[in-house]
Amino acid sequence: MLTLAPEGQLATVDISTLRTEAGAQIDEAQIAYRRWGEPAGDPNGTNNILLVEHALTGDPDASDWWCEAIGPGKALDTDEWCVICTNALGSCYGSTGPASPYPGGTGVWGSRFPAVSIRDMVLAEHRFLEALGISRVHAILGGSMGGARALEWTLLYPEQVDYALVIAVSARASAWQIGIQTAQITSITQDPDWQGGNYHGTGRAPDAGLAAARRLAHLTYRGELEIDERFGTSAQPGENPLGTYREDGERFAVQSYLEHQGRKLTERFDAASYVTLTEALNRHDVGRGRGGLNKALASSTVPTMIVGVDTDILYPYHQQEHLSRNLGNLLAMSKLSSPVGHDAFLVEARQMDRVLRNFIALTREAPSAHDIAAARGDYDI
Amino acid sequence: MLTLAPEGQLATVDISTLRTEAGAQIDEAQIAYRRWGEPAGDPNGTNNILLVEHALTGDPDASDWWCEAIGPGKALDTDEWCVICTNALGSCYGSTGPASPYPGGTGVWGSRFPAVSIRDMVLAEHRFLEALGISRVHAILGGSMGGARALEWTLLYPEQVDYALVIAVSARASAWQIGIQTAQITSITQDPDWQGGNYHGTGRAPDAGLAAARRLAHLTYRGELEIDERFGTSAQPGENPLGTYREDGERFAVQSYLEHQGRKLTERFDAASYVTLTEALNRHDVGRGRGGLNKALASSTVPTMIVGVDTDILYPYHQQEHLSRNLGNLLAMSKLSSPVGHDAFLVEARQMDRVLRNFIALTREAPSAHDIAAARGDYDI
Repeated sequence: MLTLAPEGQLATVDISTLRTEAGAQIDEAQIAYRRWGEPAGDPNGTNNILLVEHALTGDPDASDWWCEAIGPGKALDTDEWCVICTNALGSCYGSTGPASPYPGGTGVWGSRFPAVSIRDMVLAEHRFLEALGISRVHAILGGSMGGARALEWTLLYPEQVDYALVIAVSARASAWQIGIQTAQITSITQDPDWQGGNYHGTGRAPDAGLAAARRLAHLTYRGELEIDERFGTSAQPGENPLGTYREDGERFAVQSYLEHQGRKLTERFDAASYVTLTEALNRHDVGRGRGGLNKALASSTVPTMIVGVDTDILYPYHQQEHLSRNLGNLLAMSKLSSPVGHDAFLVEARQMDRVLRNFIALTREAPSAHDIAAARGDYDI
Repeated sequence: MLTLAPEGQLATVDISTLRTEAGAQIDEAQIAYRRWGEPAGDPNGTNNILLVEHALTGDPDASDWWCEAIGPGKALDTDEWCVICTNALGSCYGSTGPASPYPGGTGVWGSRFPAVSIRDMVLAEHRFLEALGISRVHAILGGSMGGARALEWTLLYPEQVDYALVIAVSARASAWQIGIQTAQITSITQDPDWQGGNYHGTGRAPDAGLAAARRLAHLTYRGELEIDERFGTSAQPGENPLGTYREDGERFAVQSYLEHQGRKLTERFDAASYVTLTEALNRHDVGRGRGGLNKALASSTVPTMIVGVDTDILYPYHQQEHLSRNLGNLLAMSKLSSPVGHDAFLVEARQMDRVLRNFIALTREAPSAHDIAAARGDYDI
């Protein structure tokens, strides 16, 4: 039916000029993606396409970060389904972001890259599917920032999404999230190497700020129970955090662990992309311009399954309860029980396997938004 | 019976040379305090003294920060009780800390001030009471870092504490706490104005780092529900956080609120004291040198009441459950129900009034550790 990139390979698709929700213009935008499994069915009707959305610093290689979920015989069975995973607009894994070449050839976007919202990311993905010749997908699935995108998809393009799975996210940023996310942004933008966002090509990057941001973020990605199970008050081997004077090199084990997490991110992620995507999360609010949060959720017609984690610090479970209570077409709700916190949707493979198989089964049974509208005669099909 | 400072007035008491748990020496140490109500009874036996312990950036003016709890006719009724509140060793409200004069007259302690533990603070308070001629108190009460001190009192000097009230704290630092507290320490010590801890008198202080630390801390002191109730995704009046580009001066209301909290602290608190006291919390572990956590708690003989807050992010309620399950002589347990989080013990006045009145009533009924030991013939009284 369609011509897609070879299985598993990174490819990019031109989506032309985008105008952001806040009024900026991004010329020559591209969206990078990978896919697994062969497309089948009608790209403009019922088909087997599953669009998977990655989290903040995720990449399009969903078969890597969700390796237990995607593949032949797995919950997202690539013998049956065609899984597509894009890279979010503003990220640094192939889609257009601050580190991408500036149209016209004068360096990279840098500080010229505008603020984008979750809706802008979805707009870009919609264009991306259009460019591939796809106007409808069987389901959109995602957790965290990926869940925010999946949710916005159901509100921006309900007629093009048959089902949605929204994991570990909320209907809008909470003030606490804005607070902790802004602390991360600030630790990057106040790094002297940030250079107003124009550090690319200068030989200096705000790695210290990015690492500090990640250390902080990691404390919101992992449950405090799990971190404590692993490290407690143990000293880092060979170091003494209980010495006569406090010293940076004499650490508790958890400090070393967090520093490792920070360092690892600087080796794979662009600081300006981190700022851009974090800012998009600050702006996440499905109620904006839609008469408020609950009215927006009530208007949703796409059968949507909501999943949360009982120990999530960043997106506490009551936020998923709020989504479930207010969504216009709730397919199901499920809770992951785990000490791991927010990241449970990435690491509790057994539980996620059940959730994903349950979701796929439900999508075979429940009428899609499209079915319901067609039965009502809303669509001419 | 005793000569104490005039009611409500700040006074200091010399406690001579202290040797810290980690082996450093603090010469010419002083402890500052205030008291309310007249002492009565035997300073070496049964008396009416309540020692109140402040939290991290608290001060000895407990009649201010616990104004609804302390005073004539209030739960801690100063017509009946003599309330004493010290300033913690290492703080900056009159007790010896990094900003205090260095013995011998060469500037302040600065980086020469050693790391102190919660136990060192309690040792200093024990010396302080000794200097006043007091060798036993009716009760020790405190929340957060004050709760950590109250708990250590019951283990270090059980024969001198008749009852204890330990609020919103844990038996030891959790790895998560160490992580978030270290982020705060780092934001101060990496401020260029920190100058290795010797910034006093240079005209430059690490205010930016201290403000950043406080913004972060505040997100752990307040429940995410309460912060969200107040600010949600509202813009700061006159600013637009949804503009075409992210700008520091275009903020969500919660950002402005947190910045205000940070700025306020820099006007009243010393950055080096903040580092010192936060490091003491990192080292908090009642199990150290006592055969482990639960053995230490089981050894406790002082009737102790434990209080927690259902929405506490910093000291989650399961930590108070852990204390309650393991303490050798649990007097009672109580939960504050509040969206406010950790700070509920300071702001939920109605609930705290009930808790404190209940605690005082229980101390009239239950035998003290001293009574029990005396009945067994352990003490020669």
